[in-house]
Amino acid sequence: MDVGCFFGLVCVVIFGNFVPQAAGIRRISPYNPRNPTDLAGKIDYKTFYFKQQVDHFGFENTDTYQQRYLLADQFWDKNEGPIFLYTGNEGDITWFCNNTGFLWDIAPEFKALLIFAEHRYYGLSMPYGSESYKDAHHLNYLTSEQALADFGSLITSLKSSLPGAKNSPVVAFGGSYGGMLASWFRLKYPNVVVGSLAASAPIFEFSELTNCEAYMSTATKPYVKASPTCADNIRQSWADINKVGSTGAGRQSLSSMFRLCKPLANVEDVADFKSWLSDTWGNLAMVNYPYPASFLEPLPAWPIKKACGSLSSPLTGQPLLEGIFEAVSLYYNYTGQAKCLDINQQGTASLGDKGWGYQACTEMVQAICADGKSDMFEPFSWNFTSYAAGCSKNWHFPLTPRPDWGPLVYWSRNLKAASNIIFSNGLLDPWSTSGVLKSISPTLVAIVIPEGAHHLDLRSSNPADPTDVVAARTQEKKIIQGWISDYWKNFK
Amino acid sequence: MDVGCFFGLVCVVIFGNFVPQAAGIRRISPYNPRNPTDLAGKIDYKTFYFKQQVDHFGFENTDTYQQRYLLADQFWDKNEGPIFLYTGNEGDITWFCNNTGFLWDIAPEFKALLIFAEHRYYGLSMPYGSESYKDAHHLNYLTSEQALADFGSLITSLKSSLPGAKNSPVVAFGGSYGGMLASWFRLKYPNVVVGSLAASAPIFEFSELTNCEAYMSTATKPYVKASPTCADNIRQSWADINKVGSTGAGRQSLSSMFRLCKPLANVEDVADFKSWLSDTWGNLAMVNYPYPASFLEPLPAWPIKKACGSLSSPLTGQPLLEGIFEAVSLYYNYTGQAKCLDINQQGTASLGDKGWGYQACTEMVQAICADGKSDMFEPFSWNFTSYAAGCSKNWHFPLTPRPDWGPLVYWSRNLKAASNIIFSNGLLDPWSTSGVLKSISPTLVAIVIPEGAHHLDLRSSNPADPTDVVAARTQEKKIIQGWISDYWKNFK
Repeated sequence: MDVGCFFGLVCVVIFGNFVPQAAGIRRISPYNPRNPTDLAGKIDYKTFYFKQQVDHFGFENTDTYQQRYLLADQFWDKNEGPIFLYTGNEGDITWFCNNTGFLWDIAPEFKALLIFAEHRYYGLSMPYGSESYKDAHHLNYLTSEQALADFGSLITSLKSSLPGAKNSPVVAFGGSYGGMLASWFRLKYPNVVVGSLAASAPIFEFSELTNCEAYMSTATKPYVKASPTCADNIRQSWADINKVGSTGAGRQSLSSMFRLCKPLANVEDVADFKSWLSDTWGNLAMVNYPYPASFLEPLPAWPIKKACGSLSSPLTGQPLLEGIFEAVSLYYNYTGQAKCLDINQQGTASLGDKGWGYQACTEMVQAICADGKSDMFEPFSWNFTSYAAGCSKNWHFPLTPRPDWGPLVYWSRNLKAASNIIFSNGLLDPWSTSGVLKSISPTLVAIVIPEGAHHLDLRSSNPADPTDVVAARTQEKKIIQGWISDYWKNFK
Repeated sequence: MDVGCFFGLVCVVIFGNFVPQAAGIRRISPYNPRNPTDLAGKIDYKTFYFKQQVDHFGFENTDTYQQRYLLADQFWDKNEGPIFLYTGNEGDITWFCNNTGFLWDIAPEFKALLIFAEHRYYGLSMPYGSESYKDAHHLNYLTSEQALADFGSLITSLKSSLPGAKNSPVVAFGGSYGGMLASWFRLKYPNVVVGSLAASAPIFEFSELTNCEAYMSTATKPYVKASPTCADNIRQSWADINKVGSTGAGRQSLSSMFRLCKPLANVEDVADFKSWLSDTWGNLAMVNYPYPASFLEPLPAWPIKKACGSLSSPLTGQPLLEGIFEAVSLYYNYTGQAKCLDINQQGTASLGDKGWGYQACTEMVQAICADGKSDMFEPFSWNFTSYAAGCSKNWHFPLTPRPDWGPLVYWSRNLKAASNIIFSNGLLDPWSTSGVLKSISPTLVAIVIPEGAHHLDLRSSNPADPTDVVAARTQEKKIIQGWISDYWKNFK
């Protein structure tokens, strides 16, 4: 059975034989001028590059590379202003910068220096240029530990070289995988960072820490909330697709109904088609924002409610499939410009996909499964052996995921020894179940945003924001202010 | 000028041109039957091997190796007893086991399981067997970060496989570099370890954190305490050695007087000779124990006092040099068995030296210098460039030390975010100045032992123990008991 596997900002189709994410699809538009909430052109920063060790953890390889970072100092009070660092995740840092309006909103009142640091192997921060993804050797330095060491080295260097920065307290921010990095940065380098805001960071998604069902069942909830019938229709659709897709004529009919760029030729294509649909439902849940936005695709406000419009009464057969087509069209063709829908659609920043695919095949092993009951997806199980075999097959070199490593190095569910981290999660977000939803200690604070999708709190303030995200941001600012005050109080 | 450079249990001569430690001398006797405080033969443990990843931080190299560990479960109460882990340092783990009597003393009352884990690249834990030290590639995995990951993986695995161990709280112990590792283990893996006793751990010895003068001036203090004249005589000796050593006849006379196995042929040899003397004074300070012991060499109680016997009145010229000879003879020939003294003497576990030499040339960059005023050594300065050049020269492959890395990854002097670490230091120990001598918080406790040399508190209880080390051990046990109680209190 197929597995639709998602992560954070990168959406991926995994094929029937568990070929992992590197074969995946990315549907990110790095910059979309039609997006009213995209900040590109409205914000001002400078771009710099910092010489980093390719390998922080060994001394044989002395290569260095240029890490990109963006810097905005127009709000900064060098005497008392903090440094706000965005710990870049699996994509072009300018895109994260443009979609993290919260930092731009609060920088003036905090008089903060903003730094957005790109994650190695993404965007323009390629350790080996166009050869970075060439083989096992060139990819060997794509790990979260190396990325955290990059952030630590960058900040340490900037603090010693940037006039005024020497004593500035640093606060880390990140969303999704970037949020995981922000929280891990505080775990591993509290000498560098006084606290971290980890927004929608599914830090418990490691296969051994969370039930594999978590993602799919949580992704189902906003559909049930929009309309229980909508979720039932989607649950029903898999059988109807299988039925229609089992014959040549049926596949032709499906291809035509869904206006697929490339017709479904066989049952393997039908499996890919279902994975692509699964992906779409998950993506839609992640970006179920209360106002028109274009985070993954240009979409209207509350897109799930809208998508469910065509699935609000019990359907089956041809009418059900037509309803499904209408719903996915909202996601892929809201602007009406798409000539056809491409189930193997590749985004504009394909390296981002490849990178996350590699990470998912090494240390970021996230188990996903579905039972079709607590969720609306076609049932499939999690099988690590098949998954691991798929990794090597897909990458064309031996690649063995190590599912135990992430939980060991990032403290599993035993975070009590940490401090000064905010874990915010929107309950509409499929990843929220793998996040920290209850405060662990007075300094490890969980903020739950019932009406929030994937790191809504990191986005710019918007008149359509639900009150709970407004309250979350207020609480976040207060806590961050507390970290900064404490820092200066203890400063000698 | 020469630099005598020491670390922990490994003593090293660095030559005049700053060739670093790998060329060094090790004077450790792994097991000495004449040593009344060595526990070999008196304690009972089993030896096991655990399959470890050679590279925890990358996925290209999938090699594994067998890490040795010693296990003693005869005191262990599986229901409530803790696990005491010794985080092995730069040498054979059986030797540390035999010289860490404190753990054997307290295991029965704590009903603890004892585990002594060997550090990779030392003892029998060779990632690539006899090729481990072959070249830059094979040595690439000799880092403290990899060693900590080994400890974490070992403990995690044992807790899941050893019946009764699943819920046992783990406390880490270590002395010298092993103490640094114990403290860093708590910083980086508090999910694995509830607390750490870091005995005589000079965690601030990194070149950028401590004045390079620290070691030499602290090494001088016990000599001054034994007899100010003794220290003055040693300070005076360098000029006399230089004078005598500047001529062939003088070198011959020196060689004969010091019964050197190999005569000093030229001024370079004289430089090595002085380094060897410097080493000796430092070593003697480290093992200035209150009872006869054989940690580095077989020695009487309070060996500095004894060595200073021949240097207690102001001397110069020939009588001074004779006094110096008598003093070093105490160190090298207390048993009277040595036929000659070898300034290039190699210990029985030379890999330990080589390993530390590599670590000192990569991440463990410890600056040492002397001014001849606050200390009794011949003045020399610290020069990183020369040091780094010496590393590559000595290892016959490019090897660039990275002095910034250690402070970054191990939190520099900014440890406030940590918890549950005891830093104990004996003030007689030359390394104490680079340790934590003041408590940082209620859970980061400094214990100072005025009459203690290098991790005296980790040794077996002895009737000749000064009261302050007895008190230190009592306090340590109480704090450790508190960690364990807290663990069970919060256990769900």
